[in-house]
Amino acid sequence: MNTAIYKSFLTKSVKVISTFKNATCVRGVHISSERLKAQIIDGVKIAKDIRRELKVEVDEWIARGNKRPHLTALLVGEDPASATYVKNKMQAAREIGIESRTLKVPPSVTQNELLDHIQFLNGDSHVDGILVQLPLPKHITERAICNAIAPHKDVDGFNIVNVGRFCLDMNTLIPCTPLGVQELIKRTGVKTFGKHAVVCGRSKNVGMPIAMLLHADGLGETSAMDATTTICHRYTPPDQLALLTRSADIIVTAAGVPNLIRADMVKPGACIIDVGITRIHNKKTGKSKLVGDVDFEAVSEVAGYITPVPGGVGPMTVAMLMRNTLIAAKKSVVYNILEPGAVVHKEASQLRP
Amino acid sequence: MNTAIYKSFLTKSVKVISTFKNATCVRGVHISSERLKAQIIDGVKIAKDIRRELKVEVDEWIARGNKRPHLTALLVGEDPASATYVKNKMQAAREIGIESRTLKVPPSVTQNELLDHIQFLNGDSHVDGILVQLPLPKHITERAICNAIAPHKDVDGFNIVNVGRFCLDMNTLIPCTPLGVQELIKRTGVKTFGKHAVVCGRSKNVGMPIAMLLHADGLGETSAMDATTTICHRYTPPDQLALLTRSADIIVTAAGVPNLIRADMVKPGACIIDVGITRIHNKKTGKSKLVGDVDFEAVSEVAGYITPVPGGVGPMTVAMLMRNTLIAAKKSVVYNILEPGAVVHKEASQLRP
Repeated sequence: MNTAIYKSFLTKSVKVISTFKNATCVRGVHISSERLKAQIIDGVKIAKDIRRELKVEVDEWIARGNKRPHLTALLVGEDPASATYVKNKMQAAREIGIESRTLKVPPSVTQNELLDHIQFLNGDSHVDGILVQLPLPKHITERAICNAIAPHKDVDGFNIVNVGRFCLDMNTLIPCTPLGVQELIKRTGVKTFGKHAVVCGRSKNVGMPIAMLLHADGLGETSAMDATTTICHRYTPPDQLALLTRSADIIVTAAGVPNLIRADMVKPGACIIDVGITRIHNKKTGKSKLVGDVDFEAVSEVAGYITPVPGGVGPMTVAMLMRNTLIAAKKSVVYNILEPGAVVHKEASQLRP
Repeated sequence: MNTAIYKSFLTKSVKVISTFKNATCVRGVHISSERLKAQIIDGVKIAKDIRRELKVEVDEWIARGNKRPHLTALLVGEDPASATYVKNKMQAAREIGIESRTLKVPPSVTQNELLDHIQFLNGDSHVDGILVQLPLPKHITERAICNAIAPHKDVDGFNIVNVGRFCLDMNTLIPCTPLGVQELIKRTGVKTFGKHAVVCGRSKNVGMPIAMLLHADGLGETSAMDATTTICHRYTPPDQLALLTRSADIIVTAAGVPNLIRADMVKPGACIIDVGITRIHNKKTGKSKLVGDVDFEAVSEVAGYITPVPGGVGPMTVAMLMRNTLIAAKKSVVYNILEPGAVVHKEASQLRP
């Protein structure tokens, strides 16, 4: 890095840090013993705010004479974690006035039987959203199941048509965790336009769609975030990762690797969103706890904003599922693009040879 | 940048540069007056090689008793540039033994009439590949047309199902220019695994899919390139862009901005793929010429590999269209994922909650 760039880099760091109250350190230089503490992004509170807003929206929707929105979950097998996830989702739905039910299916169900269930729900006009809790037993192809859910009822956003629409910045049902990350950043007031964002992890349901939302056009139908975006993954060398994260204004990590992001890898004032969840067992105490990808204590001394684990992104996923269910109920996404006479989508003109 | 990282950075630069014959400069330090010249990536030659290989494949396919592959192009209106593009594509097809024809459609065609044409071609078992030359007249929605082409005949890879499959690393018909870029890099022998790639431009038919191929999993069905990948775009500040490109092992630029990439923005030995095409008019001579996004003369003194414009990516697009037509003819992509009983796709298991 030449001197001019380094100076500009330092100037920018100082500028960022000076916007925080009681700023006391600049990129490793301690000005006093008092240390800066990042603002904790309270996912529990933000998710609660969203659910409260959605309840108002549901009430208004029904007051205008519409049917109460309905979400059906298909729970295949007896996995306790899956059962808990579904229970929490159904409870969140009820609390905001979305009718919900769980259809329990034995693990011995064949793929064709499960597809028949979905086909029936697709045709049931009372059902607005269909959720098949993953993972499924190994004898069932998850991609076939995801694609079988009618796109306009696919509240998880996993149908291939929704994935395609999303990647073209079209209005659609988008996967809930990436939406939750976007909403956390927006509601915290962190600017993304022209900033540098680093995403750690390239999974198709989290890392990839988050990178899509971060880099894409804010004027597109997904209201994306216009950040310069770097996608890191398991084959990014540690030195390269640190070099990139140190220049990042926003870091979103979804790698499932505890302590992947350490304090010396973070630019002062940066926004850190931790999507990682790993359960750590303490052999001595016999207890276990959930941790993210970020060394939370140390990084919160350097970062400007940080999500805790748990209590950060987790609650947002359920809140966004509720929002997707309401979008599905309101039929806000126009899905006739596969048919003649489709409506004009602005990004179509981008598809030039 | 701290000293340790800077040293490692310098060491890496030296290592890279030392692999080139007659290396004479290291990151701006001139060791002698003799300058390094990058290897020119000859897109014309590589595309010719591919077309020759495809011809052999077509001959073998027919020798095994199969029907000759057939590509139909729909050319709407009188745009001379579009007519030339289609003519070149049809000629390339004929040369390798793919039967081809162009259906000329008047610019006054309605969207429904055009959709009827496509519907007819979808149902014609003699037609393996359908190509609708873009752009279309403004009264027609390109997205509706792209989606109307049956996915298994969609040799441009623009149908929403193909976009979704591609973004999930599934075997599919992928847009030709991104495929051409991937093939140029692979055939030049440039390593991408764990390297840093910077893509300039986020268009949905070029920048975005190139970033997808660069960052995604090499073990996925798209044989992607496992590079750490940064997507830059019009809102990336110039300082940030330069900082990122200077650490890049591979730069792919598809911005349409002449001289966007200058010599001082390039790491010695880097691979530069220039997808940009801009026509520059010289008012004095009255002549015009095509230029890319890269300051070719100066950058070729620093880079290890570089594509010229014209003669780089351009010819590859047509070659990849031919390959897609052969893939379509051979029905190599299994498209029953929207139906019950779909085949197992390995990435389905990644779609976990």
